[in-house]
Amino acid sequence: MTGWPRADAAEVETLAEFGVATVHEAIGRTGYLGPAIRPVYPGSRVGGTAVTVLCWPGDNLMVHAAVEQCRSGDILVVTTTSPSSDGAFGELLATSLQHRGVRGLVTTGGVRDVAELHAMNFPVFSAAVSAQGTVKATAGAVTVPISINGQRIAPGDAVIADDDGVVVVARAQVGSAVTAARARVEKENAARAAFQRGELGLDRYGLRTVLSERGVEYLDYAAYQESAYQESQ
Amino acid sequence: MTGWPRADAAEVETLAEFGVATVHEAIGRTGYLGPAIRPVYPGSRVGGTAVTVLCWPGDNLMVHAAVEQCRSGDILVVTTTSPSSDGAFGELLATSLQHRGVRGLVTTGGVRDVAELHAMNFPVFSAAVSAQGTVKATAGAVTVPISINGQRIAPGDAVIADDDGVVVVARAQVGSAVTAARARVEKENAARAAFQRGELGLDRYGLRTVLSERGVEYLDYAAYQESAYQESQ
Amino acid sequence: MTGWPRADAAEVETLAEFGVATVHEAIGRTGYLGPAIRPVYPGSRVGGTAVTVLCWPGDNLMVHAAVEQCRSGDILVVTTTSPSSDGAFGELLATSLQHRGVRGLVTTGGVRDVAELHAMNFPVFSAAVSAQGTVKATAGAVTVPISINGQRIAPGDAVIADDDGVVVVARAQVGSAVTAARARVEKENAARAAFQRGELGLDRYGLRTVLSERGVEYLDYAAYQESAYQESQ
Amino acid sequence: MTGWPRADAAEVETLAEFGVATVHEAIGRTGYLGPAIRPVYPGSRVGGTAVTVLCWPGDNLMVHAAVEQCRSGDILVVTTTSPSSDGAFGELLATSLQHRGVRGLVTTGGVRDVAELHAMNFPVFSAAVSAQGTVKATAGAVTVPISINGQRIAPGDAVIADDDGVVVVARAQVGSAVTAARARVEKENAARAAFQRGELGLDRYGLRTVLSERGVEYLDYAAYQESAYQESQ
Amino acid sequence: MTGWPRADAAEVETLAEFGVATVHEAIGRTGYLGPAIRPVYPGSRVGGTAVTVLCWPGDNLMVHAAVEQCRSGDILVVTTTSPSSDGAFGELLATSLQHRGVRGLVTTGGVRDVAELHAMNFPVFSAAVSAQGTVKATAGAVTVPISINGQRIAPGDAVIADDDGVVVVARAQVGSAVTAARARVEKENAARAAFQRGELGLDRYGLRTVLSERGVEYLDYAAYQESAYQESQ
Amino acid sequence: MTGWPRADAAEVETLAEFGVATVHEAIGRTGYLGPAIRPVYPGSRVGGTAVTVLCWPGDNLMVHAAVEQCRSGDILVVTTTSPSSDGAFGELLATSLQHRGVRGLVTTGGVRDVAELHAMNFPVFSAAVSAQGTVKATAGAVTVPISINGQRIAPGDAVIADDDGVVVVARAQVGSAVTAARARVEKENAARAAFQRGELGLDRYGLRTVLSERGVEYLDYAAYQESAYQESQ
Repeated sequence: MTGWPRADAAEVETLAEFGVATVHEAIGRTGYLGPAIRPVYPGSRVGGTAVTVLCWPGDNLMVHAAVEQCRSGDILVVTTTSPSSDGAFGELLATSLQHRGVRGLVTTGGVRDVAELHAMNFPVFSAAVSAQGTVKATAGAVTVPISINGQRIAPGDAVIADDDGVVVVARAQVGSAVTAARARVEKENAARAAFQRGELGLDRYGLRTVLSERGVEYLDYAAYQESAYQESQ
Repeated sequence: MTGWPRADAAEVETLAEFGVATVHEAIGRTGYLGPAIRPVYPGSRVGGTAVTVLCWPGDNLMVHAAVEQCRSGDILVVTTTSPSSDGAFGELLATSLQHRGVRGLVTTGGVRDVAELHAMNFPVFSAAVSAQGTVKATAGAVTVPISINGQRIAPGDAVIADDDGVVVVARAQVGSAVTAARARVEKENAARAAFQRGELGLDRYGLRTVLSERGVEYLDYAAYQESAYQESQ
Repeated sequence: MTGWPRADAAEVETLAEFGVATVHEAIGRTGYLGPAIRPVYPGSRVGGTAVTVLCWPGDNLMVHAAVEQCRSGDILVVTTTSPSSDGAFGELLATSLQHRGVRGLVTTGGVRDVAELHAMNFPVFSAAVSAQGTVKATAGAVTVPISINGQRIAPGDAVIADDDGVVVVARAQVGSAVTAARARVEKENAARAAFQRGELGLDRYGLRTVLSERGVEYLDYAAYQESAYQESQ
Repeated sequence: MTGWPRADAAEVETLAEFGVATVHEAIGRTGYLGPAIRPVYPGSRVGGTAVTVLCWPGDNLMVHAAVEQCRSGDILVVTTTSPSSDGAFGELLATSLQHRGVRGLVTTGGVRDVAELHAMNFPVFSAAVSAQGTVKATAGAVTVPISINGQRIAPGDAVIADDDGVVVVARAQVGSAVTAARARVEKENAARAAFQRGELGLDRYGLRTVLSERGVEYLDYAAYQESAYQESQ
Repeated sequence: MTGWPRADAAEVETLAEFGVATVHEAIGRTGYLGPAIRPVYPGSRVGGTAVTVLCWPGDNLMVHAAVEQCRSGDILVVTTTSPSSDGAFGELLATSLQHRGVRGLVTTGGVRDVAELHAMNFPVFSAAVSAQGTVKATAGAVTVPISINGQRIAPGDAVIADDDGVVVVARAQVGSAVTAARARVEKENAARAAFQRGELGLDRYGLRTVLSERGVEYLDYAAYQESAYQESQ
Repeated sequence: MTGWPRADAAEVETLAEFGVATVHEAIGRTGYLGPAIRPVYPGSRVGGTAVTVLCWPGDNLMVHAAVEQCRSGDILVVTTTSPSSDGAFGELLATSLQHRGVRGLVTTGGVRDVAELHAMNFPVFSAAVSAQGTVKATAGAVTVPISINGQRIAPGDAVIADDDGVVVVARAQVGSAVTAARARVEKENAARAAFQRGELGLDRYGLRTVLSERGVEYLDYAAYQESAYQESQ
């Protein structure tokens, strides 16, 4: 598909600064692509607009097709019709993407040339590192909505990735996500300052009531230990 | 529970210096919490006294309750009633714990804000990194004995963690563990020096007899290859 | 077994410089030991001739037996009769191997003392890090052909390892692998230069024809969206 | 959500008769919910219209909410915001659903009371069997589009399940799926008859050309064996 | 260890009749050994008093030692110091146990001879079926407290197993568990009757209030669909 | 490859009668293809000579090529270059194989049409059941040596499969395997009779000495309990 709308670049950039965990919370604890997708090297924090790719396992034909659809500010998001850890992406494809201004790659599959990707400073988030090569034999799809970890990713959606993983924000929600994330950061800043002064989350979040409603009781250790011993005789 | 006894702080500190693998061997190859629990950033070696937490999956209510029970020299040890990789712990909780002098966190679940945790230099050992948020809705337990990887962890037990994972030493065993670990370190130092001179473990540990008792034989490659070829015809 | 032939040391060295992904492609996308075997610390690239070891789970007796068979330029390759993540290898065994000029360790099992291994700069590629100790009680085999991830590894074969994992090249194929890998590197260099100029893989590899033969079509987003909406009513 | 349209009951019934594998092929190899979802007892083949549920891990509040939305001919399809194997469904909920004419349950989570479910003849397809109980504490959603194994399931879509797993057909595609599946069954019937007479797939599907284009060659065993032996010397 | 007390045989029998899920709920949703432990053939429901065994991976020496400690009404419960799927138990050991009146076997490891075990009608619950043989070389422990899935099992505790898995009840809790399980069964019987009449869990368990407190709203499908379409433009 | 020698059909038949576990033990605890490969329906016990197939993931082109190489008494053994659970085999291919007298299928991948395969009484042992379809696009190999779970399988080797999984016996070893398995069965028959009379494995296998050499001691429960309580104070 061609000609799809993209989320606003400046707003995506702002979301990236907030980071994955904050954005995920701000949009109601949705959009997280799951703990299986990890950075291949630590320390990146990046945002972009999704170009989606659906490949056959062991086949990266559609990744090549997708490169042409990418432009500056995009992030390529790849999944496969069946699970595949094969190294469908490496340094040469990264060179092509970097030339076009693409910000990074997210994949449920595998990548290779990780030393080279690190040296290029091209952020990659994947479920596996694998040298296993792929063929270019079977059709898939580019810029169709895909789904990873139960989360829908459409072309043009915002994708934010850092050491906590990857979160997606639907294009239509990006504006409100910026507002909500900004509010959350302010709340977190206030909480951090309070915790540095020694305030407890129990008090700050009103959790003592919750604990007592749920029936949590405080016992004295020595008394409990003695009664447990008696019980076991 | 409140008022439980803790392992001696100085002895725990000494165990931490010996490291996880040495302590695990010294106490008879027990107490290891398994290869699934990994440091979220490499390079820490830390020890403390356990404050245990049992949470419902997707819920960190009891982690908040546990913070209040922690004091300087403790390590928070968290597990869930069912497997959960959700990010039940992050930078704000770490701020609270660091304020109280807590040494680190060990969890069978997930954590988030790993870049921030690294920047704070707060050691965390977990089975997952996940941005997925949790609720604060369901009761669990704090400072009860829990079990991870078949190893019992009671409040006040010694917990040692480094890049090899996490080991627990029962409070009552900490004194004898220090003695045994010190003896093992001396034995390892002597073995290291011998291996640097070229001595073989086969000789140092008397394994040639073991091999021969188990029926291991030495064959010549060329003769074997020829006979295998004949056999395959 | 003793007296087996080894791949040529200089050729193995050359393959190591090409790296795992390139060598794997050059020998027809075979020999890769799979994504489960990872470096315990990043940044190594190493090659050597295999000394193979088959252990019982939870038992490293045969690793000790194998040390004696190792000489300068070798890489120890360990697997178990059943899956085992136990820490069957650590800093003391690495000291012995380093003394003999061994280049590194590859194992489908676990290792420990990873901070020390890193400090020694002894490259280790394993499926797990685990402090869990092993016994020395049950026989296995040394320098027999073993198989990891469906790939056969015989003593004397070339083993190349880096951040992408591990690849094995049969001894008899090492010479032709050097030639093929060198040709591939030249082809990759040319492709990299082209991609840096903006050429597309679609054009360079003739993939537009493949896409069209496979029935891939280009659609306009707005038209597609409208028709999808109509369809859902 | 309430008031959504459902796929035509008779067409869903027809698809169920064709079975999961046939329907999946007929709609272009899509819609399969993956090999992790298995029948809790073998021998069912069932179809219905989806009522979707999204639960919090360890919590079945929304399953109770969903029961009210179900009517005769539906299949309940449940997933969780994070992976959870807990037994969120059992014999009592099945009793409620069976009373309403619901055809079965599909879940990425766990179920319990499997002996009783079998005795009731209520088909259940799940990723786990687990006695672990759940709470009713946290909100989720009912009759929203969910995604399992990368496949979107909207309320009212057709869901077909048998011993091969579960396939979903979008409501708008059900009519064309019936036509395509019927054509495929006829093609399969003809192929089956041919194979029973000894015709080969190689010939029937024109694969000899494919093999030869892909470079597959036929070698004589004895000649190959001899040359391999020479090479290994 | 010898001479430990056992839970009352008649009470254990009664718990077995209630089944795993009911007992697990009755004792406060604890004691479940997890979804990984499955019956090797379906259709058993059995209870007994635990004889615990801790083995080295790939080694069944201690299972043989444990047989002697078993008497009529016991269930053998086996785990290993590290994960192991090897077939440490088969038809010959089952013959010995059946001769002594043992009710069944529970193991986190593997078993073999499953066709024969089924023919003998000896219930086995295991994490794996594996023909892989074990040695008898390394010590472990018999009748010590062990832990599976975070649940402590001491010798003499009640163990209940059926198609939902395995639950353990501490010896000292067996009496109160019988009372609580009986009450739960009565409650379940009443609920079943109500659901068969068409009452909803939403009403019976007072969940409408919970839903509304948690912010769950009911939307009309057509209105929602229209607004979503507008939003996506 | 064509024209390879096959193991003797009568000897293979005899091995099949002994069953997987017995044959595996008789050949020195080797040849087992691992616990991941399970029967798709229980109750078969079958033997044959291997026809090996190596496929690309998501592609069954080479399975079709292999059918032509099969003759009466063979078992088709399939693996993939990367892990793949896709349903590369179903009822139509089984029809072709059954017509040629093939005894069954073993695969590290997935199969579909399991209800139909059961109805045809065609034994299938696989790592997955999956309806996911495959393409016929990429070359692999037929009748080359492959490796599953570290075990080499060459064309013509004996393959035995039952509810315990699958074992392979190298063609050249089949004769000696029959002899060794027969001896083992006799030994097992004698042991079974002894165990039915109440003899213990501890005595029959001389394990009391092993236990005592390994330092296993017998403790009295009451004394131990008391000392543990004192220690915990």
